[in-house]
Amino acid sequence: MSETTAAARPTPTPGLRSRADPVQVPAEGTARPRVVIIGAGFGGLRAARALRKAPVDVVLVDRHNYHLFQPLLYQVATAGLEPEQIARPVRAILRRQSNAEFRMTEVTGLEPAANRIVTTDGPIPYDYLILAVGGETNYFGLEGVPQHGFGLKDIPEAIRIRNHVLHAFERAMLEPDPEQRRAELTFIVVGGGPTGVEMAGALSELIRLVLVKDYPRLNFKDVRVLLLEATDRLLAPMPSRLREAAAETLWRKHVETRFGATVADYDGARVRLKSGEVIPARTLIWAAGVKAVSLTGRLGLATAQQGRVRVTPALEVPEHPNIYVIGDAAYLEVNGAPLPMMAPVAIQMAETAAANIRRRIAGATPVAFVYRDPGSLATIGRNAAVAYIRGIGFTGFPAWVVWLVVHIIQLIGFRNKLFVLLNWAWDYFFYERAARLITTMD
Amino acid sequence: MSETTAAARPTPTPGLRSRADPVQVPAEGTARPRVVIIGAGFGGLRAARALRKAPVDVVLVDRHNYHLFQPLLYQVATAGLEPEQIARPVRAILRRQSNAEFRMTEVTGLEPAANRIVTTDGPIPYDYLILAVGGETNYFGLEGVPQHGFGLKDIPEAIRIRNHVLHAFERAMLEPDPEQRRAELTFIVVGGGPTGVEMAGALSELIRLVLVKDYPRLNFKDVRVLLLEATDRLLAPMPSRLREAAAETLWRKHVETRFGATVADYDGARVRLKSGEVIPARTLIWAAGVKAVSLTGRLGLATAQQGRVRVTPALEVPEHPNIYVIGDAAYLEVNGAPLPMMAPVAIQMAETAAANIRRRIAGATPVAFVYRDPGSLATIGRNAAVAYIRGIGFTGFPAWVVWLVVHIIQLIGFRNKLFVLLNWAWDYFFYERAARLITTMD
Repeated sequence: MSETTAAARPTPTPGLRSRADPVQVPAEGTARPRVVIIGAGFGGLRAARALRKAPVDVVLVDRHNYHLFQPLLYQVATAGLEPEQIARPVRAILRRQSNAEFRMTEVTGLEPAANRIVTTDGPIPYDYLILAVGGETNYFGLEGVPQHGFGLKDIPEAIRIRNHVLHAFERAMLEPDPEQRRAELTFIVVGGGPTGVEMAGALSELIRLVLVKDYPRLNFKDVRVLLLEATDRLLAPMPSRLREAAAETLWRKHVETRFGATVADYDGARVRLKSGEVIPARTLIWAAGVKAVSLTGRLGLATAQQGRVRVTPALEVPEHPNIYVIGDAAYLEVNGAPLPMMAPVAIQMAETAAANIRRRIAGATPVAFVYRDPGSLATIGRNAAVAYIRGIGFTGFPAWVVWLVVHIIQLIGFRNKLFVLLNWAWDYFFYERAARLITTMD
Repeated sequence: MSETTAAARPTPTPGLRSRADPVQVPAEGTARPRVVIIGAGFGGLRAARALRKAPVDVVLVDRHNYHLFQPLLYQVATAGLEPEQIARPVRAILRRQSNAEFRMTEVTGLEPAANRIVTTDGPIPYDYLILAVGGETNYFGLEGVPQHGFGLKDIPEAIRIRNHVLHAFERAMLEPDPEQRRAELTFIVVGGGPTGVEMAGALSELIRLVLVKDYPRLNFKDVRVLLLEATDRLLAPMPSRLREAAAETLWRKHVETRFGATVADYDGARVRLKSGEVIPARTLIWAAGVKAVSLTGRLGLATAQQGRVRVTPALEVPEHPNIYVIGDAAYLEVNGAPLPMMAPVAIQMAETAAANIRRRIAGATPVAFVYRDPGSLATIGRNAAVAYIRGIGFTGFPAWVVWLVVHIIQLIGFRNKLFVLLNWAWDYFFYERAARLITTMD
């Protein structure tokens, strides 16, 4: 740890570029252990904060300069929120944490023997590493879907969906062939988990409450929103009463839910189901699967299902106890089943990983991770949601209010909370979606 | 006018696609003259509104689905506003205008003999045509500048500037070579008109008030914002006292203004001036010129300087009196000089063109356009602006308040006004720019 910061470096040597450790490091003279955290999602950010008062230097690495509140991404895709309202610059979040610094770079590899990660800007050494790299869309080997359809995991994808859906209505207005027009106006959402249910509900409301006013000359009987679910149930972990309430609410909101519908192929014009049925549709949004980001497979660590890295109950990689894996990227079974890939798991794992690093530094034995299920929530549009918290299930307006409060509280930054709340209030009272702009980056 | 709307069409013929006039037209049975307006900028939109009660059917055509408030685009480029806050869907604006419809398509040509325009979705016939196609960046034949630098005329360009500027700071943090780092942190704005002055001021404030808190380990002495102006004056039409106040305010805000500096070439790494001087800089924003959009040159109409279409004082094309040209696309001399390419000119011309169409329909003689100069305004950041209105010039805080009020009033849509005002208030009191996200569409 003898590097100095570039700013403090007294006589820099122009032109001489060392690739050994070109990135700037905390001020010289610190001999504190360095914790490198990869990923500024829910897990990585919580881990950084949990180490705020620990005797360590934290280096948080991400290829984006912002933290994204993924649970509301579907509202960006349906023109309800602006991307800036559900994202916050990592540097703004870390401003008041004096032992943390941020580096925007792409991680390409891991050298556990040398205790360093490899990035596109050179290696970064660590004493402890927390892998919080998150998940990505799992297309289960289908080739046509990622090529012609849309995933929903980051801001560019959400904006692409928004552009595409709005453009479909503009194209439909200029389309003389009624069959082509119906294909333009058929929107398929695949996957009956929370993301698929929320996406289908929000999309249908965008169309039935807002776009219907924009296109007075369009026949809205041509518009269909289909939710395709491979199994026989929506929101699988919820009790049957809530699942049925969700299905009924979707039906009231003009979403056609199809159970037992497995997508076999999509070519941008037609969805082919395993049953052989073909549905003409110009839009397919895939919310049917998640896996650990592909990076986890290139790190030389043992992975399990969905590319997740196997960890001990202390969240450590068995062969490398100074490497922790948390969130979607971690594979840990509890009661015989792997933990779900959800924000609460990542956040709670971050606390345990941070605690265990502090314990290791203090010479104590690490503790095992214990998951406390905070319950689950899914909204299906205005005044409608299902909630299952501490064994109590409720639906309709009360569940919707709980959903609103929980999401506003969890959003990072008071400004984001304020603007999202204002946006929601505006849209609620005026039946509006102001962000319905087609902003292609051509 | 015997076409029917697709929605009302009783038995559509599947598969049969006519290219003659595939686009839907107002309800059948109307024999009112059709006014086609190309462009949903300040001019086109005002013309549509001015024809609200005229006995005509209005068809507004644009390749974007939104109206953009260009005067605040530089605030999107400097992370102060979100793009959705300065844009509004055209369909939302036209909702309550029953004689207007909107078509999102690209105009490719004009057939004046047949009284129709050609679009990528087929021809559209007109009885009267208003060309309000606006302006684009004029690079004066420099090839390197559009290739490696940035214009500032639409939302994608503004987002690209925002991404690029923020990314430059991230790259600088990882750059060990001090010369390269200084090049990353040198930002060149070219052009001393209102756009260049406002852009340079806002960029410098983004850096000195906000980013300085995000990069505590960066030496901000390496950061430079240069404003290059080819002549010896900023904001040329203003009286010298105001021009000098603007230059002094820029200097106080850490902008280095260079007079007599003409850009000869830019390769993405170095700006070469006509004087031979070379400035290493990774960012160049070009605000030094505007011309009519290139479409005007392909319409077969007589053009003058900057590709603008020559019009009579009634704003009609001499050979085709049913074609009106307004705004940046129109060339009209007043007192021996062409009218400036500014929003107030476009808006006033729109009123005259709409009035003349009504007069022609009523059999009256068209009137000549009279320009009333509303004055000019430019802000240079917090509490600082220059204003010149009805021969009275003022500066500093009073001018800044006038600037704020004028821009909030002119923004279309109450929601946009509210959100922009809230954003400004927040940034003013907390020295913030919340939209500082790098959201590349890769």
